[in-house]
Amino acid sequence: MGIARRVYRSFGFSPIDTPALEYSEILLGKGSDETDKQMFRFQDQGERDVAMRFDLTIPFARFAAQHIGQLGTPFKRYHIGTVWRAEKPQKGRYREFIQCDFDTIGTDSNASDIETLFVIHDLMEAIGFTGFTIRVNHRQLLNGLLDRHSVVDKSVGILRALDKLAKIGADKVIAEMVDGVGIEKATAEQILEFAQLSGTPASILSDAESLIGDNERGQVGLTSLKELFETCRKVGIEDDRIALDVSIARGLDYYTGTIYETFLSDLPGIGSVCSGGRYDNLAGLFTKEKLPGVGASLGLDRLLAAMDELGLVKTASTPAQVLVAMFDGEKMAEYLALGRRLRSAGISAEVYPQARKIQKQFQYANRKGFRVVVIAGSREFEQQVWNVKDLELGTQTEVADADLAASLHGILSR
Amino acid sequence: MGIARRVYRSFGFSPIDTPALEYSEILLGKGSDETDKQMFRFQDQGERDVAMRFDLTIPFARFAAQHIGQLGTPFKRYHIGTVWRAEKPQKGRYREFIQCDFDTIGTDSNASDIETLFVIHDLMEAIGFTGFTIRVNHRQLLNGLLDRHSVVDKSVGILRALDKLAKIGADKVIAEMVDGVGIEKATAEQILEFAQLSGTPASILSDAESLIGDNERGQVGLTSLKELFETCRKVGIEDDRIALDVSIARGLDYYTGTIYETFLSDLPGIGSVCSGGRYDNLAGLFTKEKLPGVGASLGLDRLLAAMDELGLVKTASTPAQVLVAMFDGEKMAEYLALGRRLRSAGISAEVYPQARKIQKQFQYANRKGFRVVVIAGSREFEQQVWNVKDLELGTQTEVADADLAASLHGILSR
Repeated sequence: MGIARRVYRSFGFSPIDTPALEYSEILLGKGSDETDKQMFRFQDQGERDVAMRFDLTIPFARFAAQHIGQLGTPFKRYHIGTVWRAEKPQKGRYREFIQCDFDTIGTDSNASDIETLFVIHDLMEAIGFTGFTIRVNHRQLLNGLLDRHSVVDKSVGILRALDKLAKIGADKVIAEMVDGVGIEKATAEQILEFAQLSGTPASILSDAESLIGDNERGQVGLTSLKELFETCRKVGIEDDRIALDVSIARGLDYYTGTIYETFLSDLPGIGSVCSGGRYDNLAGLFTKEKLPGVGASLGLDRLLAAMDELGLVKTASTPAQVLVAMFDGEKMAEYLALGRRLRSAGISAEVYPQARKIQKQFQYANRKGFRVVVIAGSREFEQQVWNVKDLELGTQTEVADADLAASLHGILSR
Repeated sequence: MGIARRVYRSFGFSPIDTPALEYSEILLGKGSDETDKQMFRFQDQGERDVAMRFDLTIPFARFAAQHIGQLGTPFKRYHIGTVWRAEKPQKGRYREFIQCDFDTIGTDSNASDIETLFVIHDLMEAIGFTGFTIRVNHRQLLNGLLDRHSVVDKSVGILRALDKLAKIGADKVIAEMVDGVGIEKATAEQILEFAQLSGTPASILSDAESLIGDNERGQVGLTSLKELFETCRKVGIEDDRIALDVSIARGLDYYTGTIYETFLSDLPGIGSVCSGGRYDNLAGLFTKEKLPGVGASLGLDRLLAAMDELGLVKTASTPAQVLVAMFDGEKMAEYLALGRRLRSAGISAEVYPQARKIQKQFQYANRKGFRVVVIAGSREFEQQVWNVKDLELGTQTEVADADLAASLHGILSR
């Protein structure tokens, strides 16, 4: 969460928070039948019908509709917050979970679409993932192709048929589109050809263009994606970090432009860990003002499960790196004073609160993951030195009181 | 919240989180009649009787009772989290608010009491308050005095009478203690004398000792406070930052030892912004294991109201300091690339997403509180320079592309 916060802020996204409870009418019917059923909903003490938010997007839409006049556009916000769904809990899926959303609203500039990809990229790198691919698509590519063949009204059936490709094979998909959905065989073949395009972004875009032709909707998607991939090349984003995948669709109704999914090379099976896209109108349910935007959401619980599996989660359970052992209870003030001195020097330090057996204190230090233990008994106090034990290297050195902070800085920065 | 997090961590407190919803039986009867009534409580989809937490202490007690075996002691945790109470909302008092708690449990060492005071002190300083006083007391001082006179069983009535001191005056308080509560006049006079002690911590402690004598309970409090104030002196905490105030009591039943309240010199009327104390047994309601501890809680909403009143809240609404203006839409990739370069150099930078009129972009920059705007048009791109406009000083300079990051670092660190 700290990393997400830092990356979002570095792009100028401001934090906002909204209440956990919203009036139920704000949330009902905005997600799916499922989210309606999974809402924790009740009457409060004032007999208001309220519910706990099931995502951060609907509350943001409500917030934007109410406040966009004061906020002005473009408006960039991030929100790291808890949401609730009465689901059946399973691995990486909980009734309470945290979403990390960021969105730019009030602009339809492609610059924001490209920047959204930058944010996802920088976020994944900052977390420590080396192998990941952001798959990008644009909703208007397929729409343009369907529009060219005047079959936009049959898109639901066509998409349903395409979804079965892996299971039933190309011939049967074409048969279903022709016999079931009722489109021309030549059209069905072109749609299938489009859905199977692969290769470099440039080659896919060139192939897609020959299928879509000069259809206006399709050209919107082609132009946007061309600019996106060219800009990524110019700014030096590595080729294997981004891909054009015409098969991703993401929540059919909501998104209208660029869409993003992010997969880990070492754990593709876990699904997308950061997804999003461009929408035409965020707050349309709450206001007449049109608020286009683009954003994405980091799936924190899924990501943590993945990081755990990849060994990226450190097990240290203390945020401090130095433990000041309490060897002699009579000298409590000295140990506490040392803690203060180290903190003033920018070193996080915990002082063990009791003069228990020193072995117990070392056990504590090891279990909690401290890097260094600092000890002094009567001899050390007399000579104004400290015993510095490096738990990682297993070494012990005597350091003069005046040099202690510098010495610890040296150990901790190694 | 970021500052609280940093200070807590520097002392070795680990973050924990607990769910917003607890079984109602966990929360009921643990606060007061009021908190019971103010709970947002309902039946979930599985017909479980659940409620939203009204503080972070009871859930921590439940958590500690369940997990202390794995956690081990001492255990230091902080928790910055949202809590809910169906109160009548008023200034600085909301139905949803954030608490910032920290506690050390599993030790009765006075070192932890003293460190709790250090945490409050460092936190207030880190937030930016210069004038504040942490008022300290110990529950066993008054208890010791009452015990010495064998009137502990009458403490409720005695405290009620003492509470009226400012309103009704000394004579009437003594009369109430004698006639209403039924204690000896000499005892009542000593209790009143104790309650009115003032001066330096050392003088109060000396006066208190002559009243309390060698009563065992009272001596516990005296010894603990003596060590606390002596240690504060040794480690160099300024005298005006701490005071001994025998009149503070804080939640009569819960605390058993040292207690803390923190007042702002410029806004004493707002009440304590950071309060806490030592308790004998945190998790007694949930486990047989005895878990003594000490901690405090930062009242974030009250503190923010105070900071707002004292002009300590900055109004900038962007976390980025540099706005890259988009002068020429054709050069979008260049502006986006510059944003990336600046971020790599550790400078938070937002790129304006559209080539709108430059005045509009400056309006945006001023409204959001950006410090610097960076601009380039065709001439600048040709000459590989950027126009750097310092919004605070109102100056504009031309900087070579290669020197830009260094130049901005210079401006931002001034």
